[in-house]
Amino acid sequence: MRLGLDIGGTKTDAVVLDDGGALAHRLRAATGLGADAVVATAVTLIERIASEAGLEPASFDSIGVGIPGQVDTATGHVWHAVNLGVDELDFGGRVSERIGVPVSVENDVKAAALGAYHLLPGRQQERSMAYLNLGTGLAAGLVIDGRLWRGARGAAGEIGHIPVDPQGVLCPCGQRGCLETVASGSAIARQWPSDDPIPIRSLLAAAEAGDGAAQRIRDSFVDNVAAAVRVLVLTLDVDTVTIGGGLSALGDWLLDSVREVLGRWAADSAFLASLGLSDRVRVVPAGFPAAAVGAALVGAGTSHPVVSLGEQRDERVVSWLK
Amino acid sequence: MRLGLDIGGTKTDAVVLDDGGALAHRLRAATGLGADAVVATAVTLIERIASEAGLEPASFDSIGVGIPGQVDTATGHVWHAVNLGVDELDFGGRVSERIGVPVSVENDVKAAALGAYHLLPGRQQERSMAYLNLGTGLAAGLVIDGRLWRGARGAAGEIGHIPVDPQGVLCPCGQRGCLETVASGSAIARQWPSDDPIPIRSLLAAAEAGDGAAQRIRDSFVDNVAAAVRVLVLTLDVDTVTIGGGLSALGDWLLDSVREVLGRWAADSAFLASLGLSDRVRVVPAGFPAAAVGAALVGAGTSHPVVSLGEQRDERVVSWLK
Repeated sequence: MRLGLDIGGTKTDAVVLDDGGALAHRLRAATGLGADAVVATAVTLIERIASEAGLEPASFDSIGVGIPGQVDTATGHVWHAVNLGVDELDFGGRVSERIGVPVSVENDVKAAALGAYHLLPGRQQERSMAYLNLGTGLAAGLVIDGRLWRGARGAAGEIGHIPVDPQGVLCPCGQRGCLETVASGSAIARQWPSDDPIPIRSLLAAAEAGDGAAQRIRDSFVDNVAAAVRVLVLTLDVDTVTIGGGLSALGDWLLDSVREVLGRWAADSAFLASLGLSDRVRVVPAGFPAAAVGAALVGAGTSHPVVSLGEQRDERVVSWLK
Repeated sequence: MRLGLDIGGTKTDAVVLDDGGALAHRLRAATGLGADAVVATAVTLIERIASEAGLEPASFDSIGVGIPGQVDTATGHVWHAVNLGVDELDFGGRVSERIGVPVSVENDVKAAALGAYHLLPGRQQERSMAYLNLGTGLAAGLVIDGRLWRGARGAAGEIGHIPVDPQGVLCPCGQRGCLETVASGSAIARQWPSDDPIPIRSLLAAAEAGDGAAQRIRDSFVDNVAAAVRVLVLTLDVDTVTIGGGLSALGDWLLDSVREVLGRWAADSAFLASLGLSDRVRVVPAGFPAAAVGAALVGAGTSHPVVSLGEQRDERVVSWLK
């Protein structure tokens, strides 16, 4: 049995995978903010789900945690987990000490990439996948040749900071017009201030009602999500691009809109058409615990695990989620 | 012994690698244009360099060929090798039939990526490299985890068709403002028509002499080569980006200019600075037969060879080239 945690800005997701790779248990709880509260959230959830599974933490084959920010996978150290109120934290060390067994730590988007790759149907035919995370920011996790690819310094997939508009706004990263400044939750919140806790909901309603400004912001958002897909396929030629993160809750609307843009581009470019971009895009199903499952797999003890989950088990997981 | 060929638009390069991976023989000849002449060039050079090595073609452990255009590595079929006057050709089949043994075929930029990865010093510490080919067009070959990564449809590295300027010129691919329309040999030839067989030489001379238009074209070229490096590192976080292709003959000027732009960007962005882009860039030494050597390695019989060349041998190859 493997245990995985995904520590998000509002909620933390815990899962237990059985020996066949199927989801045996799942728990969610609010995430505490600040270093001490984040550690306490992780420890409490590990103990609760272990107890639900009838095991001691030490009895699991592995325990892994996905967490936002920059992660040193060798030490479990975490930096710049802004949404958690954490600037720097020996997360792996502190959690391991509290529960008495080693814990693997991975960036949440990278963990989600691994989780989505192993859970989604069809991966048997696919050697590669980019997981395009549309949350507060925009970043991708990459699975290449069936393995998580972190890159030389763990920066693989940081496509949110590829500039796409020389006249664009200044990005917190110091560059101008980054992809993240037009195709992310923060981009929508900046361009369409709203009391709605999900600003894009208000934006889409206004656009639907005929507001020209809202339509322009919406169209720019969709165009640039499509541009992110294009960058990923032109650079890596991944079999699929799976869109996840908070904005993936837009579900079919997001998928259809992005495919419509990719289809329009393909109509003008035989080259793009030959790449079949539109067919490669998917959106993760709502509630899909990709990062927690991926964290359980990362916990297998290497940052490049090749974990084979049987086809049968995949189907069970997928139907469990429906 | 392995035999490798690189079929270029003007010259074809042939090499023989000995069992330790060192360059034992090298020959060059003019490339004939059109399907029949291209096949004849390959067959003649294979026979000549085999004879120089004192072997029959059938005695080599492998024979591989790098060729421009789209390549089906399973069949050796080639499409759209425009510079060779070839629209479609059963290249692998025809050459194999003529010399009596199977020949592996790979796209020349992908072969060069593998060759550069194995030949350049320092690869012992490096798991990944992007080979950025600046020739008539702009494309990259990718080595990830020590292996050539072709992608789902062989399109990995086609970053020349990432649009960077919505107001840019129409690219032959059907999109507007592609990276290739501003940072390639064809981009220079279009923007700076000249009788010089190497138009960028005339451009750089004019820019040096104070011509404002030439300076703008030159600066846009360098900025966008740097942008290509940024796309490769932000997407893949490769250890190094090695610039090759015809324009790599610009050598230190190109390396220094690109590093100057990357350094300027890093001064404005702590994020980019943390990635150390400038330190990751290299330019292939003049005359470096990267594609021919890579073709010899591709010929090992798989599109994802892991060929280990001893450190000693690498040094011999590198010094042979100086």
